[in-house]
Amino acid sequence: MDQQHSFDGFSLRRILTNDTERKMIAVEGNFNGGIEPAVVVLEKYAFDEASVLNVCNSGTKLKLNMENDVYKSFSCVPPFNENIAFNKMDLIYPASEKHILKFSSQPIYLVQETEDIYQNITLPHILSNSLSLQWVYNCLEYKSEKEKIKYDTASENQKNDDNDGFILLPDLKWSGKISELYLLAIVKKRNIKSLRDLTADHLQLLKNILNKGSAAIFKLYGVELSQLRIYVHYQPSFYHFHVHFTYLMHKPVGINVEKAHLLTTIINNIEMQGNYYQKAMLNYTIKESDPLFNCFVERGILRKAKPLDETNNL
Amino acid sequence: MDQQHSFDGFSLRRILTNDTERKMIAVEGNFNGGIEPAVVVLEKYAFDEASVLNVCNSGTKLKLNMENDVYKSFSCVPPFNENIAFNKMDLIYPASEKHILKFSSQPIYLVQETEDIYQNITLPHILSNSLSLQWVYNCLEYKSEKEKIKYDTASENQKNDDNDGFILLPDLKWSGKISELYLLAIVKKRNIKSLRDLTADHLQLLKNILNKGSAAIFKLYGVELSQLRIYVHYQPSFYHFHVHFTYLMHKPVGINVEKAHLLTTIINNIEMQGNYYQKAMLNYTIKESDPLFNCFVERGILRKAKPLDETNNL
Repeated sequence: MDQQHSFDGFSLRRILTNDTERKMIAVEGNFNGGIEPAVVVLEKYAFDEASVLNVCNSGTKLKLNMENDVYKSFSCVPPFNENIAFNKMDLIYPASEKHILKFSSQPIYLVQETEDIYQNITLPHILSNSLSLQWVYNCLEYKSEKEKIKYDTASENQKNDDNDGFILLPDLKWSGKISELYLLAIVKKRNIKSLRDLTADHLQLLKNILNKGSAAIFKLYGVELSQLRIYVHYQPSFYHFHVHFTYLMHKPVGINVEKAHLLTTIINNIEMQGNYYQKAMLNYTIKESDPLFNCFVERGILRKAKPLDETNNL
Repeated sequence: MDQQHSFDGFSLRRILTNDTERKMIAVEGNFNGGIEPAVVVLEKYAFDEASVLNVCNSGTKLKLNMENDVYKSFSCVPPFNENIAFNKMDLIYPASEKHILKFSSQPIYLVQETEDIYQNITLPHILSNSLSLQWVYNCLEYKSEKEKIKYDTASENQKNDDNDGFILLPDLKWSGKISELYLLAIVKKRNIKSLRDLTADHLQLLKNILNKGSAAIFKLYGVELSQLRIYVHYQPSFYHFHVHFTYLMHKPVGINVEKAHLLTTIINNIEMQGNYYQKAMLNYTIKESDPLFNCFVERGILRKAKPLDETNNL
């Protein structure tokens, strides 16, 4: 093994981010005092039967922390077992400034976007900064990923398919397990950028996605509508309207209330008021490194937060 | 150490639930072939500097899984170090059937609750099954937890405090770290069960919670409004209206779109339509073991899902 494989002479420079819920950490360091930085990302593995048995074992060192009635709580150091991997490690070496920034946690902010803020700040920013949608059009024109399409409304010869149709594709993050089901419905209509553009004109399209999308998923995977989370992101990661379908018991990123909008709620809101999504205040989060953040600061809508001071709470 | 402390003779009977994102597992087993069941809950500890250095160490066994350009990915088995605890363990022994059920994962379902379903199914169920609210009234009457109150609108001598006032208490789940901030605003008014009861009459109360609650948190902890997630649960865990305040970068349970409703969205919806929360379709999740689940099945609104068949996706 070479130097980077053995971690001989590694020294830790700083912690970039620490996700204590997922048990994942990213750190910056270097080897043998060199100046080239390394980014190391560690994530603990989930438990399985073998790792449970390696803990629930007479060789494990247990430290009792609490005891009350039938309840006990311990800290455990299980015996060394070279067959039970402890964690995954991703190493980037040498790492660039961009790599370091990507793994550094940075403040996020919640924007209360009114109709006025959308028209004057968010929309101009989207129009001048959006990434190309060519890959989406390639899918819709069957020029790429054709073999990945799980369902296509064109198969039902429906009228107005260009207006009310969609294709169903597996999301890139889907592992393929049904218990982690993650599909995307991509609409064929090309001028709906996001939630903000939806009006009563799109109700048929939205109901098609809900009904035909969930029916296709039941047929393909045996998952009922009542066990699906069907939602839209605002802001989306690309500005061609699409809808996420995930298994309700699976918890992928992007299902939090500050980011996700349930499709049934969207349909209901438009039925209650046709221009709901033009008029409503919508929340969304942005990172401090997003160029849009500075637009909000310049106009006095957001201000840069000071770092948290934990001594405030002593 | 006694038998249960050493895990001598422990045998694993079955996995009750496995949260692969949090790296937490609950299993049922027994000791020395006895019939009394034990429930063991294991959760891996988050990384800290010491555990990172124990992995990024020349003694760690690395298995290379991927190598491409500056990127490498490994599985790691770090050296044994008795000072670095691997996981937390909660042991319940002997465990009852209720303990086992509590830790067993079970299907959850998403209900699309219309006005009619609320009036005829959910509301009667709430009225006949709710837990006592005496503990809430004790807080509001300063009979218990008085020393825990972080802010009280009564301190500002506002008019109509009984109608528009609230107290701010730390949530039971709050660790006390500002980076994991979690407070609850509990309203003084006593007849608001949940989101479903909110009307234009409550706008002043809701705006008070938003404005005075966030101002108090900024004063106490230095956290800005734009870094707070302020929301309501539907269904709530108790039927006296309360609002959750959490730090935006912290991800506690109960912030998913199928459970959480942002306070600013609630205010906006009521301003757009005064009876929004009486008329709207609202989604909520229920477990299969919830007595309410059977009410929905009997009326044909939900049906019991078959277990997932992963072979469906080969």
